Amino acid sequence: MIRPVDIKRVKIDDRFWSRETELVRKEVIPYQWDILNDRVPDAAPSFCMHNFKAAGNLNRKMRTLGRDYEAPKYTYRGFAVFPERREEAKDDEFYGFLFQDSDFSKWIEAVGYSLAAYPDPVLEETADKAIDIVCDAQLPNGYLDTYYIINGMDKSFSDLRDHHELYCMGHLIEGAVSYYQATGKDKLLNAARRFADYVAGIFGTEEGRINGYPGHEIAEMALFRLYEVTGEERYRNLAEYFIDQRGQEPLYFEKEHPDMKGKPDYYHQAHMPVRKQREAVGHAVRAVYLYSGMADMARITGDTELLTACEALWDSIADTKLYITGGIGGTHIGEAFSFPYDLPNDTAYSETCASIGLIFFARRMLQIKPDRKYSDIMELALYNCVLSGMALDGKSFFYVNPLEVLPEACAKDERKEHVKPVRQKWFGCACCPPNIARLLTSVGSYAYTESEDTLFTHLYMSSKITKSVSGRDVGIRVESGIPVNGEVSVFVEGAADTGFVLALRIPGWTSGKYEIKGAEGLETSVRDGYLYISGFDSDREIRLMFDISPRVVVSDPRVNEDNLRAAVMRGPFVYCAEEADNGKGLRSIRLKRPFEIRQSVTDEFGIDAVRLDISAVRVSATGGEAFASRLYKTFDRMSESETDLKLIPYFLWSNRGEGEMSVFFGY
Amino acid sequence: MIRPVDIKRVKIDDRFWSRETELVRKEVIPYQWDILNDRVPDAAPSFCMHNFKAAGNLNRKMRTLGRDYEAPKYTYRGFAVFPERREEAKDDEFYGFLFQDSDFSKWIEAVGYSLAAYPDPVLEETADKAIDIVCDAQLPNGYLDTYYIINGMDKSFSDLRDHHELYCMGHLIEGAVSYYQATGKDKLLNAARRFADYVAGIFGTEEGRINGYPGHEIAEMALFRLYEVTGEERYRNLAEYFIDQRGQEPLYFEKEHPDMKGKPDYYHQAHMPVRKQREAVGHAVRAVYLYSGMADMARITGDTELLTACEALWDSIADTKLYITGGIGGTHIGEAFSFPYDLPNDTAYSETCASIGLIFFARRMLQIKPDRKYSDIMELALYNCVLSGMALDGKSFFYVNPLEVLPEACAKDERKEHVKPVRQKWFGCACCPPNIARLLTSVGSYAYTESEDTLFTHLYMSSKITKSVSGRDVGIRVESGIPVNGEVSVFVEGAADTGFVLALRIPGWTSGKYEIKGAEGLETSVRDGYLYISGFDSDREIRLMFDISPRVVVSDPRVNEDNLRAAVMRGPFVYCAEEADNGKGLRSIRLKRPFEIRQSVTDEFGIDAVRLDISAVRVSATGGEAFASRLYKTFDRMSESETDLKLIPYFLWSNRGEGEMSVFFGY
Repeated sequence: MIRPVDIKRVKIDDRFWSRETELVRKEVIPYQWDILNDRVPDAAPSFCMHNFKAAGNLNRKMRTLGRDYEAPKYTYRGFAVFPERREEAKDDEFYGFLFQDSDFSKWIEAVGYSLAAYPDPVLEETADKAIDIVCDAQLPNGYLDTYYIINGMDKSFSDLRDHHELYCMGHLIEGAVSYYQATGKDKLLNAARRFADYVAGIFGTEEGRINGYPGHEIAEMALFRLYEVTGEERYRNLAEYFIDQRGQEPLYFEKEHPDMKGKPDYYHQAHMPVRKQREAVGHAVRAVYLYSGMADMARITGDTELLTACEALWDSIADTKLYITGGIGGTHIGEAFSFPYDLPNDTAYSETCASIGLIFFARRMLQIKPDRKYSDIMELALYNCVLSGMALDGKSFFYVNPLEVLPEACAKDERKEHVKPVRQKWFGCACCPPNIARLLTSVGSYAYTESEDTLFTHLYMSSKITKSVSGRDVGIRVESGIPVNGEVSVFVEGAADTGFVLALRIPGWTSGKYEIKGAEGLETSVRDGYLYISGFDSDREIRLMFDISPRVVVSDPRVNEDNLRAAVMRGPFVYCAEEADNGKGLRSIRLKRPFEIRQSVTDEFGIDAVRLDISAVRVSATGGEAFASRLYKTFDRMSESETDLKLIPYFLWSNRGEGEMSVFFGY
Repeated sequence: MIRPVDIKRVKIDDRFWSRETELVRKEVIPYQWDILNDRVPDAAPSFCMHNFKAAGNLNRKMRTLGRDYEAPKYTYRGFAVFPERREEAKDDEFYGFLFQDSDFSKWIEAVGYSLAAYPDPVLEETADKAIDIVCDAQLPNGYLDTYYIINGMDKSFSDLRDHHELYCMGHLIEGAVSYYQATGKDKLLNAARRFADYVAGIFGTEEGRINGYPGHEIAEMALFRLYEVTGEERYRNLAEYFIDQRGQEPLYFEKEHPDMKGKPDYYHQAHMPVRKQREAVGHAVRAVYLYSGMADMARITGDTELLTACEALWDSIADTKLYITGGIGGTHIGEAFSFPYDLPNDTAYSETCASIGLIFFARRMLQIKPDRKYSDIMELALYNCVLSGMALDGKSFFYVNPLEVLPEACAKDERKEHVKPVRQKWFGCACCPPNIARLLTSVGSYAYTESEDTLFTHLYMSSKITKSVSGRDVGIRVESGIPVNGEVSVFVEGAADTGFVLALRIPGWTSGKYEIKGAEGLETSVRDGYLYISGFDSDREIRLMFDISPRVVVSDPRVNEDNLRAAVMRGPFVYCAEEADNGKGLRSIRLKRPFEIRQSVTDEFGIDAVRLDISAVRVSATGGEAFASRLYKTFDRMSESETDLKLIPYFLWSNRGEGEMSVFFGY
């Protein structure tokens, strides 16, 4: 059984990654807490903690009256309700999106991971108090979604498709488990369990039960996690029920929403039973959250039919629906996967959260089978689309991560309304920033997984891990030069005669070009992109030198608009050109062949980064006469002026104001 | 004063154009009549004649009862109402779009032009009977829009922005004038006049009048036409009122629709007074219809301020918002102009009707000032975007004329839902087919305009024109080799000593390369792209040999996605590549430099057409290793296979089934 390494046993001390996690700890988590409490004057109000308090008050009133909670009669007020002015908010009303509770859960999840790495009593006290408020809102029967507690329980679970109660439950579980694992405190965990127990009691295919499933998936993987932490079969059963019931005839969402009858519900991945699904479709975040749950189930149950579906869905994404940046979601319509190979650069959706979900899915597939095909993409998504989601100062965020931006079009073309040329402070629907926070604070559990005797290294970052093998602690220390260079040292201590196996990913971006030193006399073999080293007889320093030289990358010709265009990568980083370095008109620049790329290390972004300069020509067709319109000229001759196209890592884009940006270039 | 030549004095006998007009006469007009009467089982029902009959019955009933018409109380039933099944339609109800009346008007307009060229007693009888039905529907006060006559007159003219009464009036006038000019019959003309009289009586800035204007322009140019035919000042005054009132504060449409308050109404060109407008914005058809009316007014009144606006709006289109095909409307959102230089090829709207409207605008600008800048674009739009709108058999139509098509994307990508890879039979909202019909049947009035002594030749087609100069008839006969070759002969008879001036457009696409023979001894001069020939002393044959050799054309670099790409033209024709000739993957084909183009005449489309073959390479980057995803490969070497890219005139595309198509190619 392969599992993520307990993040308490991973100590990351890496120039690159520690900066990111520190940013989350010092900037994002405190800022987000202020947001949850509506203390940021110029950001969209959240009302998240307000809602928990309002529900708690309602609860308390009932208890004081000495009778069971009697909810008001439910009235629908809209998918998101905000008061005209902050001060007009009523104490006993629900505000915000109807899934606003989940903002707390994502925050507490990130807090848990952060506390696991960096104990912080002040933060822990804040969190404990927040947990008290949240738990106060829970109904005696275990139900805990403030939207219905406040607005009327008579309609709870009456709109599974659009009202996110099961989604909120899923996030609550994830947050509660994280906090429990970090602190050992189980108050929130127990609240989450009671909510899950309540749900387990009313959902199912049996007569009289609700035979539906989540409109926005996440509960599936959360319940498997809860099962793995508590050992309680009922959570696993509930998760399995959700997964297997999804898409079964008669379709539950069609019963809820008869107007959608007969239209395949790709958006919610409810168009057919999940075991039969082979193509990744619909809302990209929902999809990869579902697939993550399916992968958990395949691993836990050993169900090969489900595994086949997971593998097919993975390949569908990896081979036909993945941006070079690790982004997914080719269309903003439904924030969804488009058809295979439809990966437009300028109208991409490529939501930060979707890449995060893809990383969830990848880690779970790696738990089933350590194969570079999963970790290569996990790394790609992390270093590019996910990191791009947050500004260098941790204070603004991208939801959408386009591969080409013309600021004027974002401002003036409604078709690109979703594409922002600069990161936004905080959104009313704040999914991405807290998702970045919970991923980055737990990045160690993506870098490493372990089985009984093996430590799998999927991502390279300077860190220390303690792994127990045959009752002995093996110490592994990694020193990684990535992203500046490709040199990685792994120090293994205390492994002699333990049967310890070190599995090191050989990144796909090396094209198999790497050197290894220090493994002399050990048993080594390469399988599915991992170098397995065993037979440790003494402490060792194993040195890997990966070829991280820059390379030009082209897309499958079926990616229509990337034809005759190429991108540049170096190691896991995709590069882009910005107007700040190259002026306007990036589309008129053509890379020169044979390609000549020069590298230089820079600290101008406040981090060690490698800039690339690639020889190019700026093309303009001139000299010919215009006819009819000044827009069109008969081609006469072409003026080509030599230039160095200056490239920076994609994740650093838009940290110097608004301007053109592009990943692909003509060649 | 320059005016279009009376089409009764133009006899077109041209291999290319006669086929088009015959198609309209033999296919489109009869088919459309069947549509108007809902006799085409597999096409969307029109209910156009049904509505006129229903209104007529209502009228008759009132007259029988011996009292004034009492309308039912108005109830809004939707922008378009269709019965579930054709046979469930009630005799006394209105169906279809609320501007359905205009379908008759466009049809009768085309019928008029067609009768002017080809007398056809059977068609004329059909038309007379239709006119009887239409006139029967008119209220005693002159009002004639069946939507309100049937649904309730209490709300007539209460929603000028969205309900198309004034639009229907405009089309009715255009149709009535055409029919009157062709046949001399004035029954419909009188009905149109009475409707216009009624409108003139209730619209205006005076107290108690409606101080609004059309939500969909056309009445403006129609009323000027009615004025020029009847000499009645009140029609001209009404048109001038509509034009000058548009966009005046307080904005009329904001009064009607307070929810739009404060949002600039670009869509209806009502964001500011028209004299101040400088950028073409909003719904493209509406825009060019308005500008056409403005040009009429500038010409008739000599108003230089208005002329300045017209010139600026023309330049805004010509120099920043025009597709190389003469299409306009860069975005389907609002079927509208996008921002300057935003001319996406694959998501283009480029509606056939908008190009037709652009031709209206161009002809009117030519009446003010004969300048090739107008006629070059008129020709471009006609030969490409407009002709593309109709299939070779005249039985199916494009509304949207994209410059690049990937059929799979049209089917699967909602962002390209408006783009169809094959022409459609008939639409419920059938604007384009009848618009093509009325343009093609009157093409002579775009080919030629005249002043007292001058005949202006804007388009070249074999035809005979009789022009009266100094009381004598001058005969002009044109023999045109276009589109097959660039040879044009103009025979002038009876011009000696009349003072006759022949103005021949030297097309911009010649880049000034042409030869002239037969003008020896005559006075010639070139002004604004026209060759003026005068001093005729005898009958003459003047021969022009225009350089029609194919050429490669590039876009202004500000047209973002055309950078590093080029198109091919020959004479006025834009060329495209189709999958039928070149297989899939048009995006991976790169034109070779220096460009080598071979021409060949073909009759495979049933017409004389010139095919072009251009040397190209099909590029695939191969050999490199895929990493992470099969989608992306490290560039190793490029495989270039030589190919001849086979091109056909753009207007011929999609006559051989569904497939990829592209106008621009990498080079």
